[in-house]
This record gives sequence, C-alpha cells and structure tokens, in this order.
Amino acid sequence: MSDKSNKLKARLPRGLVDRTPADIAATRAMLEKIRKVYEHYGFDPVETPAIEYTDALGKFLPDQDRPNEGVFSFQDDDEQWMSLRYDLTAPLARYVAENFDALPKPYRSYREGYVFRNEKPGPGRFRQFMQFDADTVGSASMAADAEICMMAADTMEALGIPRGSYIVKVNNRKVLDGVLESIGLGGAEHAGKRLTVLRAIDKLDRLGPDGVKLLLGEGRKDESGDFTKGAGLTHEAIDTVLAFTAAKGETSHATVANLANVVATSKQGLEGIDELRQIAALVATAGYDDRVIVDSSVVRGLEYYTGPVYEVELLIETRDEKNRPVRFGSVGGGGRYDGLVSRFRGEPVPATGFSIGVSRLAAALALVNKADTQPNFGPVVVTVFDSDRIADYQQMVAELRQAGIRAELYLGSGKFGPQMKYADKRNAPCVVIQGSDEKNDAAGEQVVVKDLILGAELSKLEKGRDEYLQKQADAQRKVRRDQMVKTVQEILARHGVKTMMA
Amino acid sequence: MSDKSNKLKARLPRGLVDRTPADIAATRAMLEKIRKVYEHYGFDPVETPAIEYTDALGKFLPDQDRPNEGVFSFQDDDEQWMSLRYDLTAPLARYVAENFDALPKPYRSYREGYVFRNEKPGPGRFRQFMQFDADTVGSASMAADAEICMMAADTMEALGIPRGSYIVKVNNRKVLDGVLESIGLGGAEHAGKRLTVLRAIDKLDRLGPDGVKLLLGEGRKDESGDFTKGAGLTHEAIDTVLAFTAAKGETSHATVANLANVVATSKQGLEGIDELRQIAALVATAGYDDRVIVDSSVVRGLEYYTGPVYEVELLIETRDEKNRPVRFGSVGGGGRYDGLVSRFRGEPVPATGFSIGVSRLAAALALVNKADTQPNFGPVVVTVFDSDRIADYQQMVAELRQAGIRAELYLGSGKFGPQMKYADKRNAPCVVIQGSDEKNDAAGEQVVVKDLILGAELSKLEKGRDEYLQKQADAQRKVRRDQMVKTVQEILARHGVKTMMA
Repeated sequence: MSDKSNKLKARLPRGLVDRTPADIAATRAMLEKIRKVYEHYGFDPVETPAIEYTDALGKFLPDQDRPNEGVFSFQDDDEQWMSLRYDLTAPLARYVAENFDALPKPYRSYREGYVFRNEKPGPGRFRQFMQFDADTVGSASMAADAEICMMAADTMEALGIPRGSYIVKVNNRKVLDGVLESIGLGGAEHAGKRLTVLRAIDKLDRLGPDGVKLLLGEGRKDESGDFTKGAGLTHEAIDTVLAFTAAKGETSHATVANLANVVATSKQGLEGIDELRQIAALVATAGYDDRVIVDSSVVRGLEYYTGPVYEVELLIETRDEKNRPVRFGSVGGGGRYDGLVSRFRGEPVPATGFSIGVSRLAAALALVNKADTQPNFGPVVVTVFDSDRIADYQQMVAELRQAGIRAELYLGSGKFGPQMKYADKRNAPCVVIQGSDEKNDAAGEQVVVKDLILGAELSKLEKGRDEYLQKQADAQRKVRRDQMVKTVQEILARHGVKTMMA
Repeated sequence: MSDKSNKLKARLPRGLVDRTPADIAATRAMLEKIRKVYEHYGFDPVETPAIEYTDALGKFLPDQDRPNEGVFSFQDDDEQWMSLRYDLTAPLARYVAENFDALPKPYRSYREGYVFRNEKPGPGRFRQFMQFDADTVGSASMAADAEICMMAADTMEALGIPRGSYIVKVNNRKVLDGVLESIGLGGAEHAGKRLTVLRAIDKLDRLGPDGVKLLLGEGRKDESGDFTKGAGLTHEAIDTVLAFTAAKGETSHATVANLANVVATSKQGLEGIDELRQIAALVATAGYDDRVIVDSSVVRGLEYYTGPVYEVELLIETRDEKNRPVRFGSVGGGGRYDGLVSRFRGEPVPATGFSIGVSRLAAALALVNKADTQPNFGPVVVTVFDSDRIADYQQMVAELRQAGIRAELYLGSGKFGPQMKYADKRNAPCVVIQGSDEKNDAAGEQVVVKDLILGAELSKLEKGRDEYLQKQADAQRKVRRDQMVKTVQEILARHGVKTMMA
C-alpha cells in the first residue's frame, strides 16, 4: 500500500529490547519462586505506577554524570514535572508516606516491576529493566536487616542455586562514614566528595584495588579513553580507605574486629560496628553464618543508604566480554534507607530493603540450570489442504484442544511445502493432514498424522533399511478420522510431550 | 530530620493508582487463566518495552480531542521523539515488521502489559492501565478472526463467567464504510468526517440512539455542559447510519441480511457482508453461534481497523455512577488492522487482534465471583517480649516457616498492646508469645499460642458462661516450647487456614 522508499523504519530506541518466549517463560517461573519465599516471610505485595512526580522520586541515581538526564521526564498539563521511576524504592517511600496511617507498622512488602534509566546504553546496560524488591518500613531493628539477608539466601536456594554458589555480603555505611570522618571528610560540606569515594569503592569488583586507587586520587582513564575525575584524596587518605575495603577476615567476627581498628574513635563508625555485630549474631543464631557474612568491600552505589548495606553475589563462573573466566558477581542488593520516607513525613521512619536485578538473575539461572533448556515443543498443527473446508479443519483443532492438546489451524495461504515449513518453525510435534483422498477414502473418512520428531530422527538415520522402513511407517500414520485424537495422543506420549491443560 | 513545613507532599499524579494486595492477587490469578487459554490455542508470548519511537507508534488514539497530548512523549539525547506506548497493537506491528523474516507466518502471539494515555483522567479512566492482547499476523483468512472470537468466548468461561452472561459481538468496518460511501462520505477527503461518525457510533452503548443522533448532526452538550461538535450529517444520512446500527436481527444470519440491504451496491460494503457471512458460518460449524454473534452496533473507536471488528460484552448487571442498574458492558475487543504492519514493510501484511482491558475485566470478575472474597489470613506473628532475646524469637519464626507456615517476627518497638494491634492489622490467625515467666517456667520452657480468630468470636459471644470459658481456654493455650509448631498447626487446621508452602 505505501511506497517502499517512503516507508517507516521499524526499530527500537537503543537500550530497549523485545523479550522472547523463552525469556518470558523463564522469568515467570523465577518470579513465582521469589514471590513464594517473600510471602512465606510475611511480605505482602503492593504495586505503584511507573510514573511519579519528579520531586517525589528525588535524585538518588547511582550515575550522576548526567544529573538531569538520568531519568525520563515530561510535564503534566498543569506544568508539574513527572518522571518514569528509576527504581522501586523511591516510589515505595512515597506510597508508605501517603498511606502511613492505614498500613501496619512495621510494614513488610514486596513488588516487581520495570524501572527506567535515561542513561547511555551499553553491553548489559538497558534503559528499561525489571527489579524485584522487598522492604521493611518502620523498624529500626537490625533484626529487619538480618531477616532480609537471610530471606535473600533462601531465595537463591529456592531458585536452585546451591549453598556455596552464592554469598550474601553485609557491610555498614556508618563504618565507611566513620572512616571518611577520620580522614577529614565529615560534615555536609564534603557530601559530594563522600559520594565520589563511595562510587569509587563500589567499582572495586570491576576495577580492582589499583583502579579504585586512581579514582580515589587524580582520576582514571578507561579503555575507551574516557577520563573519570577522581576524588583527589591524599596518599594517606587513600591508604585508609583501601584498608577499610581490605578489612575482610576469615569470619564475620574477624572482619568486624578489623573494621573496629580502622574506624578508631569515630562515633558514627562505632555505631556501624555495633550494628554489624548485631546482624552477625542474629545470623549466627539462625545458622546462616556460612552464607550471610560481613564483608567490607560492599558499599552499594546509591546515595540514600544510611546503615547496613548488603549484596548477593553469585560465585559461579562466567565469561566477560573478552571471554576471560570471571565470577558472575552481584545479582541484587540493598540496605537501610532511614531518610527516604522521612522526606515526606517530617519524622524519622526507619526502613530497609533489598532489590533483585531480574534480568541479571535470569541470566545467572540460565547458567546454573542448563538442564532446563530442553526443547519445548510447540502446538500440533492441523494443515489446510482444501481451503473450502476450513470449518472441517477447525473442527479437528477444536477436538484436539478439548482433549487437552495445544493445537492450531494453519491460517496462511501456503501450499503443502510452506505448511510443513511453518510446522517446523513452530516446533510442532506432529501435524494432521487431510486431503480429498483421505476425506473420500472408500474405507471411510481418514486423516494422516505425521510425527515430526520421529521424522527428524529419520532424516538423520545412517543406514539400516529395516529400521528406516519401520520408523517411516511409525512416522506417518493414516488412521480413521475418529482415531485422530487418540493417534496424536500416542505420538505425544511417545516423545513425552506434555499436554498443556491436562 | 526535615522541617515539617518544608517537607515534600507524598502524592500521585492524577489518573494513576497504587494497587492493593487483593487486586494484585486477583489479577495474577486472572492473567494465569487467560494465558492458559491463549497458549492452548497455539499463541506464543512476546513482550515489547514500554517506550517506542513516536513515529513507530503512529497516531491512532481513540480520543483526538488532544491530538498531541494523548501520549506521554520525551526526546532522546539525539533529539528523536520517544513515547510511552498507548496500546499493545502498534508496538506489536513494529516488532513483527522488525523481525519479519525470523517469525513463523502466520504469527500468533499474546502479551500483557501496561499502556499509558496522557488524557484527562476521569471516573474509571486511568493514565496507566493494563491490557492483555492476542494477535494473528500474516493471515488474511476470516478463520483467523473467527478463531480469536471463539478464543475470547473460551477465555470468559475459563474465568468463570457462565455462558449466557457474556456475548462476543462481531461487525465489519467495510460494511460501515459502504454505508458511508452510500451517503457520499467515501474517499480520502472525508477521512476525518468518517472518523467522527465512527466515534459517535462507538458511544451508542453509553448515550443511546438519541445521543448518537446529536453527535451525527450538530453536536451534543453533555451533563457537565461540555459541547462536542457533531459530524454535521443531513437528516437522511443520519437515518441511514442509524439504520446500520439498528440492523440487528434475531440471528447472525438475519443481521447480515439486514446489513446487506443497508449497504445496497457499495463494493466495499458487499465485501464486508461476505466476510461477516464467512465468520458466521465458521462460528456456527464450531458450535459457538450462541455466544459469537453478528451485531451491527459494534464499531470500535480506533481508526486503524480495516475489516472485522469484535467486542466482548458482559451481560451481568452492575450500577452506574448514579446507582442505576446497567449492563456491565465491554471488557475487551479488537479487529482486523491490515495496514499497521504495512506501514513499515511496504507490502500488505494482514493482521487481526484482540485486547482485554484487564482492570475492567477484574472488576467484572469481582462481581461474578463474590464467593472468592472470603477473608485471607495473614502470617502467624511471633511477638517480642524481651528485646534482648530477639534471636530466640527469630528461631521460633524459622521453625514455623520450616513447617510450611507463613510466619513473621514483630520488628517494631511497641509493647504488648501495639504488638496485638499489629497482629490484628496483619489479619494474623494466631500469635506466639513468650515472656520471662514462660521462658523460665518450673515445668520447662513454655510458649503461649493465642488463637486470634477464636478470640474475635469470643468477643462477639452473647451469653453462655460455660461456652465462653471453654472457648477462652481454647483461644489461649500455654504449651511446651517443643509443642509450638504442632499447636499452631492445630489452630490453623481448626480454621481451615492453608499453609503456603505445603
């Protein structure tokens, strides 16, 4: 209808992706398992919309290189600015503040949903992605943080990641703040520099101590030649910060003791040490101390955390862009954000929460559960030989469906060849065929049921005339019309194909 | 922390809503049932992102009162305009065009997701809402349309809406176009006026023939005083259009015959009549003619439809804003849109699809399945009497969870009263209590398990001292610590509360 030269180009904006059936099915199964664990822990679902007033979201993005462009924003007809949410925590804070009196407190809730970041897209970096969060609002108790860390561990195991293949690392922002205070970076006037330090440490996993050292000092040029300005700390200050990140001991107890040495006399720092001790004790009593451990290298990149921070790391091996073996790394994390709800309430409202990066975790599960990737058969296809008799073919499809078999009618205009190609593309286990010969068979109405799985094996068969002929006979059976459903069922059973609605 | 007078206001932009646990659970169950039917029909899931290039979406919004404001749009860093999708059909067209060679054709797919409309919000009219779509792309056969109509019927029944309480209405845009041609509104120069007529007819359900008559003529002032300009048709033309909408006969066959009279000799109109006849025949053969019927009052408000249009209407009764009994009405609809994919391909790509309004359908199901709204109990709450012994209480919670019981620890700082209020608010079936008396009982460590369901009955009990005392004894039992899980299980069983993970 339209002129070729004039036609629109079908393309997605960068950093956005369409999702395949396999990805959708795997994610759905995964979300269901996470949900069960969270429900079991007493968390209730709640869901907020994708759009919020910009001021309600605040500016807590991990990447401030493009401060006003980190979010997608637009104006309402009354000129108020609205934005797409960039995480699920800021909207939860708005929700809790708005419904404060009606909610039970402490309030445990969970939610999954898409978040949007107006960032430069890159490998594995998308502008729309899904998070799955759990939060406890209204509890200052370290038991709330410990609970979420243990729930995160249970979640990994519910997803089939064996103990030993993941670890939940816990640290505390107050300890880091104590360290920064000790090197003269306390007070509101140094907030910006503290954030730079924070984000430098957050890259420890990726850049190693040497890279972080550059970011804490003058700055660092990456492989593409881009220069990131550093925090400009002195050599002594850099050493102190690196001592903090390297404080990890053999046990959580040892790590806390090492950290206590680094923070020395800072009041904030000692508060953080005490909180870490409480969490370590709770986790030990519950028997989770082999999988929830104190680790000073974790800081989390978001500005709003105020106390414990935690991260779930997968220890399984994968390959980086250059095909070098690396640990899979973080699939989720979170921490305490006592200030977020308070912005609306004008009173302290303690809160702590955890966020899973759904796509990343799905990618990890695909690595772990390789066995799950067995071929998933498509529907049985009823072919159309005589276009005047579509109603007859449709009737066959209806009978198959009524018997609990996923089935579909070929709806295109192709002849036999294209129809068989279609069935192959659909990964159909078998096709049903009825031409006029079968319809008007002297022995009564017949259909041909062709087993495509056996047919594919047949085409790979090396020698053996007898076997070939036997398989060929099995692979294509002409049966009475009233035996169609039974024959299809036999073929599905032969290959262990499950019928959907059974 | 922040000054009360300075604090942010926690509020959502108009037309957006937060979703409750009950709504989320009901919707999830509903989506699962729809998905099963669609899968069974051979439809595969596919999902596109919420953001598309504005030009790829096109401008096919039902409400053109605010042509440039109907969608939420923003510019990318390369100045290209992007928009939030306003339906799931336009993005599907982009997806199919972009992946044309890789997809099986005809291509059946389904997806659910949020769509966004930058419209003036009103009662039941939201700026973010969920749709659930199924589409067949690449088939010009009326069997594709008939299949979707029958699938829509099966979906209603899978959701528990009994046959007779819903109807799938089918009409054809070509018939309407034929009628419009016959009154001199054919050709590209009258496209705008045809759209106005279309949208007037689409309001038949809500405004009745008299209201539509005004919209076809000079215009209509609504109850709020807003004036909508009419199509400015002559009296004869208005009568012809109304004859079209009133062509409904006793059977689909009779309706098609009536419509054939109205379109007279228009080529387009006769094509439409033939398509309706084909669909009616296919539906009759499949035995769906009691629930999929031809009805000329259906036109659908979207501009892009090119042939059959269909709508699922619920016949169950509800109340309008003024508490008058009315039919629930449409919960979904769709039609053939042969031009949407062609915009990208420069070759004809026939397509037909169906969209369910998820929130509307959920509201309808809430009316139908009133029995499903029985109280849903929350988790068992373990209270905290001695804050030094949080680890002990946490251990109790862990034991309950390991036994498959949804359980949680009280994480607040309240004393006994607030803790019991919390348990009430959580709708907990029972609470576990252990003070120092129970901990240090001479007979060995004890716990108290309080049955809150029985307790609530107790408080409503009229007389009967003996019954009261018996129930009181049942409602609060002091048992040995190692009997805690068993006692909780007994209480849950007494009230038929299901344990989640069992």
